[in-house]
Amino acid sequence: MAIRYELIKECKQSGARLGILHTPHGKIETPIFMPVGTQATVKTMTPEELKDINAQIILSNTYHLYLRPGHEIVEQAGGLHKFMNWDRPILTDSGGFQVFSLGDLRTISEDGVEFRSHIDGSKHFLSPEKVMEIENSLGADIIMAFDECAPYPADRNYVKNSLERTTRWAKRCKEAHENTDKQALFGIIQGGMYKDLREQSAAEIIGLDFPGYAVGGLSVGEPKELMYEVLDYTTPLMPKDKPRYLMGVGSPDCLIEGVIRGIDMFDCVLPTRIGRNGTAMTSQGRVVIKNAKYKADFTPLDSNCDCYACRNYSRAYIRHLFKAQEILAARLVTIHNLHFLLKLMEDVRQAIREDRLLDFKKEFFAKYGYDL
Amino acid sequence: MAIRYELIKECKQSGARLGILHTPHGKIETPIFMPVGTQATVKTMTPEELKDINAQIILSNTYHLYLRPGHEIVEQAGGLHKFMNWDRPILTDSGGFQVFSLGDLRTISEDGVEFRSHIDGSKHFLSPEKVMEIENSLGADIIMAFDECAPYPADRNYVKNSLERTTRWAKRCKEAHENTDKQALFGIIQGGMYKDLREQSAAEIIGLDFPGYAVGGLSVGEPKELMYEVLDYTTPLMPKDKPRYLMGVGSPDCLIEGVIRGIDMFDCVLPTRIGRNGTAMTSQGRVVIKNAKYKADFTPLDSNCDCYACRNYSRAYIRHLFKAQEILAARLVTIHNLHFLLKLMEDVRQAIREDRLLDFKKEFFAKYGYDL
Repeated sequence: MAIRYELIKECKQSGARLGILHTPHGKIETPIFMPVGTQATVKTMTPEELKDINAQIILSNTYHLYLRPGHEIVEQAGGLHKFMNWDRPILTDSGGFQVFSLGDLRTISEDGVEFRSHIDGSKHFLSPEKVMEIENSLGADIIMAFDECAPYPADRNYVKNSLERTTRWAKRCKEAHENTDKQALFGIIQGGMYKDLREQSAAEIIGLDFPGYAVGGLSVGEPKELMYEVLDYTTPLMPKDKPRYLMGVGSPDCLIEGVIRGIDMFDCVLPTRIGRNGTAMTSQGRVVIKNAKYKADFTPLDSNCDCYACRNYSRAYIRHLFKAQEILAARLVTIHNLHFLLKLMEDVRQAIREDRLLDFKKEFFAKYGYDL
Repeated sequence: MAIRYELIKECKQSGARLGILHTPHGKIETPIFMPVGTQATVKTMTPEELKDINAQIILSNTYHLYLRPGHEIVEQAGGLHKFMNWDRPILTDSGGFQVFSLGDLRTISEDGVEFRSHIDGSKHFLSPEKVMEIENSLGADIIMAFDECAPYPADRNYVKNSLERTTRWAKRCKEAHENTDKQALFGIIQGGMYKDLREQSAAEIIGLDFPGYAVGGLSVGEPKELMYEVLDYTTPLMPKDKPRYLMGVGSPDCLIEGVIRGIDMFDCVLPTRIGRNGTAMTSQGRVVIKNAKYKADFTPLDSNCDCYACRNYSRAYIRHLFKAQEILAARLVTIHNLHFLLKLMEDVRQAIREDRLLDFKKEFFAKYGYDL
């Protein structure tokens, strides 16, 4: 077995779990947020900077690396860890979400998905077997099965057909996966916003016995309350001895609500994307640093933060860097935002340890507001 | 006196000098190359990364900082060092070169230069007095007098008028400069490619008695041989007990040839600019990393280099980052190129110490070629 989930304790105030995920590249404390390194780099950052903010695992995108530089290149380099100089755990998604997001550029069949590259328009075909070949080449510690992520809203019939195909594809992925001793293949539970379909998908996917499970098809445009409702009835169906991953979620409120419902892993481009655009998550709420009011503000981005950016630079300086379109601008706010979320997850783990996650949630929202 | 130049030794093989420049923010070993941080940041880099490659002094641009964020903001921040978190020496240019480069957007009079901002078209006026006010606000260790840099080619009469105005402006700068104890004002010798005019300018500027002197108006499009010729007759006119700065020069061959002719300080955007565009200076000549031949090249940018980029990443990875337009690409090649030039200057200083700079030059060009 490539990975092992060790359940340390369950929170007495909520469904939250404290755990350790043992992987070929070291231990991960859960619940955890995974910074996204789409193209074999977490945008603007070095691996050393990621370690400096205690990033324990990162995510990279199969679709992007397949198209550029090509998984064969990454394999020749000795795998993704070596290629990008990151020796801690990596998770690769399956590319499913990306190819389904291509809209008119793709055609789905039982065999797989034919699509055109967003880079050069060239034609490609991804199937469960092809995705396993790619993910095996990349060599991440955790790899995701090729699934179909239904849009929101979607009618019941569409979602049902889609989840059933996801089950058949999950089975094909399991059969095609070659490095079971070094890479853990996670199954993905679909079923949209329909309780009975989530139950059906959970039963089918869990029936295939994967070393971990993801909840897919959420954070696709539905109201947050609806996402929480789906989690309310989905996570109790998932085995306690396996890690649970909620895909594509990264706002502070959703992280906390997800953990309360028993989720262990999260990823999202939110902190890095808004950071590059000059929006910082801070204990005073969101700071849009290009705003004129920060022109002569010589305090840090967040006076309660001890990240590299907040220790060394003022809002006025960072604002100047953004106005002047300097690369250091994007670097500093990216560091800050990722640090903010990783520190939040550290605080969340401590709150679980102390059986007070619901109290922590109240304190957090009172301090930071709900829409950070 | 803000600075003091200590002449350690003169090379027995050439006109080169080994020295130490004592400044309010520490010592600088000369000859030295100064990385350019135009807008209060050396593009893509943090101050810690600059220290990691042994940058001893950086240059920043008065024209740019005056326009954005405004020198009053930098002054309120506690000066440029504090604003940008750099505690080693800084040199600010005078903005002269930038405003004269604006062409149709500026009008020169005896009083100063009226121009329109390249950012928003707003109207501004820079005079020797205004430039001193700005440079005093910024607070660099070394500040440059406001000069007129004649273009190449330019007729004798134009150059003569221009150098004489530069002298009058240098005098006005000296009178307007307020922080003589903390900031050293350098005079700039002009005179184009005319020997007698260089002699006239040198006599006039040196007659005003500055703590250091620059050779301006070179590297403006003239052939390199012509630049060397001008240096051949200009540097012997400059006092031995003051630092000599050749403005805007940064290719390896010009650095070595400049040092041979007695220059102590250089600056140029070349290494950072070509680095961001994917060209690396290496011991195998220039490497244009986007080239297809590096697609599966898993060796470092330069196998003789021990910079951060070369210790940790392959050409294939850096090529991928450039193709994918990732910020880390520009970071890595910038680090490499600056390290390459700073290491070159370290080797040059060692060669002077050993009285073998001409031998070093031969070895260097035999190894690296002349057009690196």
